[in-house]
Amino acid sequence: MSQVSVASGENPEVHISEVGPRDGLQSTQRIMATADKLRWIGALHATGLREIEVGSFVPPRLLPQMADAAEVVAGARLLPGLTVMALVPNQKGAGAALAAGVHKLTLPVSASEAHSMANVRRTPLQMVDEVRAVVALRDAHDPAVGVEVGISTAFGCTLQGPVDEDDVIRLAVRCAEAGAQEVGLSDTTGYANPAQVRRLFRRLRAELGERAGAAHMHNTRGLGLANCLAAFEEGVTTFDASQAGLGGCPYAPGASGNVVTEDLVFMFEAMGVRTGVDLSLLMQAREALARGLPEEPLYGMTPEAGLPKGFAAEVARA
Amino acid sequence: MSQVSVASGENPEVHISEVGPRDGLQSTQRIMATADKLRWIGALHATGLREIEVGSFVPPRLLPQMADAAEVVAGARLLPGLTVMALVPNQKGAGAALAAGVHKLTLPVSASEAHSMANVRRTPLQMVDEVRAVVALRDAHDPAVGVEVGISTAFGCTLQGPVDEDDVIRLAVRCAEAGAQEVGLSDTTGYANPAQVRRLFRRLRAELGERAGAAHMHNTRGLGLANCLAAFEEGVTTFDASQAGLGGCPYAPGASGNVVTEDLVFMFEAMGVRTGVDLSLLMQAREALARGLPEEPLYGMTPEAGLPKGFAAEVARA
Repeated sequence: MSQVSVASGENPEVHISEVGPRDGLQSTQRIMATADKLRWIGALHATGLREIEVGSFVPPRLLPQMADAAEVVAGARLLPGLTVMALVPNQKGAGAALAAGVHKLTLPVSASEAHSMANVRRTPLQMVDEVRAVVALRDAHDPAVGVEVGISTAFGCTLQGPVDEDDVIRLAVRCAEAGAQEVGLSDTTGYANPAQVRRLFRRLRAELGERAGAAHMHNTRGLGLANCLAAFEEGVTTFDASQAGLGGCPYAPGASGNVVTEDLVFMFEAMGVRTGVDLSLLMQAREALARGLPEEPLYGMTPEAGLPKGFAAEVARA
Repeated sequence: MSQVSVASGENPEVHISEVGPRDGLQSTQRIMATADKLRWIGALHATGLREIEVGSFVPPRLLPQMADAAEVVAGARLLPGLTVMALVPNQKGAGAALAAGVHKLTLPVSASEAHSMANVRRTPLQMVDEVRAVVALRDAHDPAVGVEVGISTAFGCTLQGPVDEDDVIRLAVRCAEAGAQEVGLSDTTGYANPAQVRRLFRRLRAELGERAGAAHMHNTRGLGLANCLAAFEEGVTTFDASQAGLGGCPYAPGASGNVVTEDLVFMFEAMGVRTGVDLSLLMQAREALARGLPEEPLYGMTPEAGLPKGFAAEVARA
């Protein structure tokens, strides 16, 4: 099949960061067994994905789905060329993640004061101090480990409503000053629109240059891919996505609703923008997910509709 | 409610052409009663929509759902400021539509030879002759009536696969030369991607200037809104959409899958691009649709998720 050349292609133009094993699995009722997680992560890696958020280091009583995070990190580290990432809410989580051997930490810092207090009982500025402490911890442990921040509720908040764009950018700059190597923007609530995405990423890139990080978009109101397109056109090259929209229907409300990896990769590949991901293998990786969580609904429009007639040949020719 | 000012706002920046009463209703199994169609069209008009495709003039044995097209046109003509549009596949349909009093005719001309032969048993070039004949008929009847062409399968065809972009543009130019006042591009098959949309509309506008017409996008692979965004950024100002994705789930394959009007209007209004459509009234118009076709599923992500907190105030302030 001609698409194999895509998966093995060097130098992708955009990087898809697969967050399903963390963002997806922490939202499901049932718990995926460690071996199944690793089988799925292996299948995702085989598609050409080179960054996977494999878990979060939080108290198991809060998120029992993530209790095996250290084991998953250890297993994922065996996959060649993979950046193994984990979410950590604080220093304690960061210490555990570093001990487990992650290549990259990601910290959520909310731009909405109301959301931040409700979620982590700290103000956004107190979270900046946490970032600084995590960076120090990382420096002591292994300076080669990456520290990334995702500014959550960057496009609006279900509690406070609109979030001031100046506040978002100021907070992102502070996180970078605190030592985060990359600072991305997350549409936690599915409120973003393409004009706002362009404005905010343009400002973020003007302030942070190469340290401006990923676009993490949700599809709550159907604008997920349009928002990724807008971010791409502003120069963003890293995009978070979740296979099969795991953990909540991205086509229904009140759900996690991450952008579906399959649809996002299809959009870019169809545009002639190389992702380094083999779409056929990505479709196949759904089987490993289904095997690990047999009753979980799998979403995605491209997997259901199939690839356009002649698509593989087109992509190979491009 | 502050959004009322939006509906009554002058000079919208983009025009939403509602195609649900034609494209949607001709795809449903059940037939909506004429009075219910007119109640729904009235509700759509009340939202601020100023162009509605109310039916198609085709043999009733082929599409019994459209058998009352003349009556619907007559009723819709009573709504002030509304451009009443109907689809006609040929001269015969055009004659009936003109007699019924439409303000605008739209003809589908397929760029794919295979699709054209399968659909209307004529080649694309034979369809250009049909356009010329319809324009002559219109001139004889009332030169004030508009004639629009939608180039179908402009972004790919389920029968022949990729469609040559030169062929699409050449055909569009021929349709304009044959007298069509506007020539738009339709993604009949849900194959389009944003890069292709930009390329084709850029070329279309370079060739036809102000006679470059609407973007008619489907959401088969989830890219409907991203494609509308790409078209908008190339200067397209008219977009076809269908309330509630009527006639087929836009989030599932094998279906009509028109872009959902509610989601499209939300995207533009959230971006600060005025549509002239009141989103709250648009949500309410779904009730008239549900009343006329009680068992038909209604889709749309914005209606299900609701508007973001503080959205109405944001829009009013913009």
